[in-house]
Amino acid sequence: MNPVATGTAPLVADPARLQDHIDAFAALSEPDSGPGVTRLAYTALERQAHAVFTRWMTDLGLRVWTDAAGNTLAERSGTNPDLPALGAGSHLDSVPNAGAYDGIAGVVAAMETARLFAEADIEHAFPIRFVAFAAEEGARFGQACTGSRIVAGLTGPDDLESKSDAQGVTLAEAMRSVGFAPHEVARARWQSADWAAFLELHIEQGSVLESTGTPVGIVDQISGSTRIMIEITGRASHTGGTPMHLRADSMTAAAEVVLLAESLANDTRHRGTRISVGKMEASPGSITTIAGRTRLYVDVRDIDSDRQRLTVAELVERAKSLCERRNVTFAATALADASPVILPRRLRDTVASTCTDLQIDYRVLPSGASHDSQMINHVVPTGLIFVPSRDGISHSPVEWTSADELATGTSVLAAGLLALDQQMRPHATA
Amino acid sequence: MNPVATGTAPLVADPARLQDHIDAFAALSEPDSGPGVTRLAYTALERQAHAVFTRWMTDLGLRVWTDAAGNTLAERSGTNPDLPALGAGSHLDSVPNAGAYDGIAGVVAAMETARLFAEADIEHAFPIRFVAFAAEEGARFGQACTGSRIVAGLTGPDDLESKSDAQGVTLAEAMRSVGFAPHEVARARWQSADWAAFLELHIEQGSVLESTGTPVGIVDQISGSTRIMIEITGRASHTGGTPMHLRADSMTAAAEVVLLAESLANDTRHRGTRISVGKMEASPGSITTIAGRTRLYVDVRDIDSDRQRLTVAELVERAKSLCERRNVTFAATALADASPVILPRRLRDTVASTCTDLQIDYRVLPSGASHDSQMINHVVPTGLIFVPSRDGISHSPVEWTSADELATGTSVLAAGLLALDQQMRPHATA
Repeated sequence: MNPVATGTAPLVADPARLQDHIDAFAALSEPDSGPGVTRLAYTALERQAHAVFTRWMTDLGLRVWTDAAGNTLAERSGTNPDLPALGAGSHLDSVPNAGAYDGIAGVVAAMETARLFAEADIEHAFPIRFVAFAAEEGARFGQACTGSRIVAGLTGPDDLESKSDAQGVTLAEAMRSVGFAPHEVARARWQSADWAAFLELHIEQGSVLESTGTPVGIVDQISGSTRIMIEITGRASHTGGTPMHLRADSMTAAAEVVLLAESLANDTRHRGTRISVGKMEASPGSITTIAGRTRLYVDVRDIDSDRQRLTVAELVERAKSLCERRNVTFAATALADASPVILPRRLRDTVASTCTDLQIDYRVLPSGASHDSQMINHVVPTGLIFVPSRDGISHSPVEWTSADELATGTSVLAAGLLALDQQMRPHATA
Repeated sequence: MNPVATGTAPLVADPARLQDHIDAFAALSEPDSGPGVTRLAYTALERQAHAVFTRWMTDLGLRVWTDAAGNTLAERSGTNPDLPALGAGSHLDSVPNAGAYDGIAGVVAAMETARLFAEADIEHAFPIRFVAFAAEEGARFGQACTGSRIVAGLTGPDDLESKSDAQGVTLAEAMRSVGFAPHEVARARWQSADWAAFLELHIEQGSVLESTGTPVGIVDQISGSTRIMIEITGRASHTGGTPMHLRADSMTAAAEVVLLAESLANDTRHRGTRISVGKMEASPGSITTIAGRTRLYVDVRDIDSDRQRLTVAELVERAKSLCERRNVTFAATALADASPVILPRRLRDTVASTCTDLQIDYRVLPSGASHDSQMINHVVPTGLIFVPSRDGISHSPVEWTSADELATGTSVLAAGLLALDQQMRPHATA
């Protein structure tokens, strides 16, 4: 089987063009926000990035629309109007002080694939939809993958009203501020009957591919993530006037919780569990005042769904009791909860055989990070393709993937879509 | 000896009037800054508070001027123009989300004393200067007692250019922004020959007076305070993609430093040492990103000057080595350093005998907090009078002292000044 429908030589992605797209998106960053890219969910900057995607796809002759959740879809027609769609894409928002590749790599790979198909006049039976999801990062509202959760029917209007950012702006308010209607998000929902399969390309955000010298990863499972906010309340008081034994210090209790979380993740029962406290807010935040209230934001990831929830329960229980011992009050609030998923074997096999055809090494591996794939796999069978991350670093200004590595992954994505187009046709023989 | 120079009944401070002043100053708070009073050093609001003080003193017929550091002085003439001044006062700025009494109590006691002297037509030989110091709190710039340090010659222009707030505004810039000339602060310096003695009234900010049912405290020594900023740099990376053993997490290292500081203060070598981390900043501050950089602001207080510096050195040494073990980098920056002081015996004795004459119980005790007294005692013999703090709480919106307690302290201040006026006259016999 030739993965390219026209029977010609495989399509070859252009590293320079991919890099141009990466650079253009990276330029859309909040001014005065420090190093790296800051383009948070449901901001004007995120919409500017979607406008760039829209213009590119429109210029290639695709039909482009934006749904009620802010996801942008660009459809290239297939030769058989009765078939459901194949899809490819990722997201365009970022965490604060991010790199230029998380999410963006998958969108620029989709943009380059659309260009390759257009320039080579590729015909496919299935319509192919290139997608830029909105609001994938959980950094602003705690919940990750909001755009893809909405299309998968996993998040509705109530959820959008209840989650808010550090300034108290709810997800729903943020959506309205950039022109979307949160009460109408049900209209954005995807129907399984409309979709045949989906492929997402993403940077690994880990170091397996780099350390093994493998250009492509095929993801078999994606970690779940439970996120909680722990609020510890003690008593703000003068640092000089308050003896050590009369303190109710929320900061020292919080420090003990941070180390408890770390030790839980490192104990022998938890090989694979990852627990992080990336955000802490101590109030009133003065060098001469004992912190009266400290908030900790905790992220628990696991491939094992039961262990994920049991770990959170154990952390909460033990943190609560250490706070009692320290005479400070403890409260935990659930911010988000997503189960681990196993991605469908059939798509993994298709991507693997595509790699073999293209003579590109690959490796099957799990994903510690959440992805839009995790959500849309509920409505459309989804495959997730990784390209290497230098030093395994992501969510950082130094996040980097070479243009050549990105081009290799993009060639697999393009060929993979065409392989699916062949395989999944009603008349196709494998 | 009658503490009141006129030989009449002791002057009695008016609780209602004191409370009115407290409330008026409390109303001068940064909008949208959360609970309590926020009136930081060298802001327009601090200057408004000084304007209130100026108007009150001017209306009482005193000569009022503001020096190059922003301290406001109001002089009531004495009958002997050759004598140096007696003084009384405290400060008008606050920490963020403060109470209404820290510093302010001493200024309103001075305002009420000036009123009592004016209304009773009290004569005194020495001129009496009522003082509202500027920028006592170290919350904004790290350095405490800037106004009183300047008059004592302990802080000069270079220091003002080198210390800055969280927004990077230097002390010098902040001073200029409210109309002062930081390069001319030498002009504000007090000469010992111009001053005979000074009394500061302040809330205790601890619970010794309340727990022993004592209305007045007389301070014998004031803790020193060394303040450092510790910056720990790890590697920002994705919380899901980065295995526990490959992390360089500045947050967990910072948590260990917080607990190290606490354990140092609690060990048997350190009875009396107080170590606090009231402020922590983790960057980039996202729930899905391992904190790449965390800053800790540490305050070390001690009555023992050597132990204070040795404790800081031990904390830095051990924090540095735990950071090395955790594969994150460590840096410590000195923010401020003040030695403990012992206040002069003679003034303590005068205040004590004043209390005895007025039949007011007192207790001699140390101060854990820094005060303007600590600085001006370098140029003028200074006494420090404490009134009770409910639950010992300060630097908090719930900081509270009753109007009656404040009035009792004010009566001692007024009588104490007149006792000094009698005692210190060239012809006086004790």
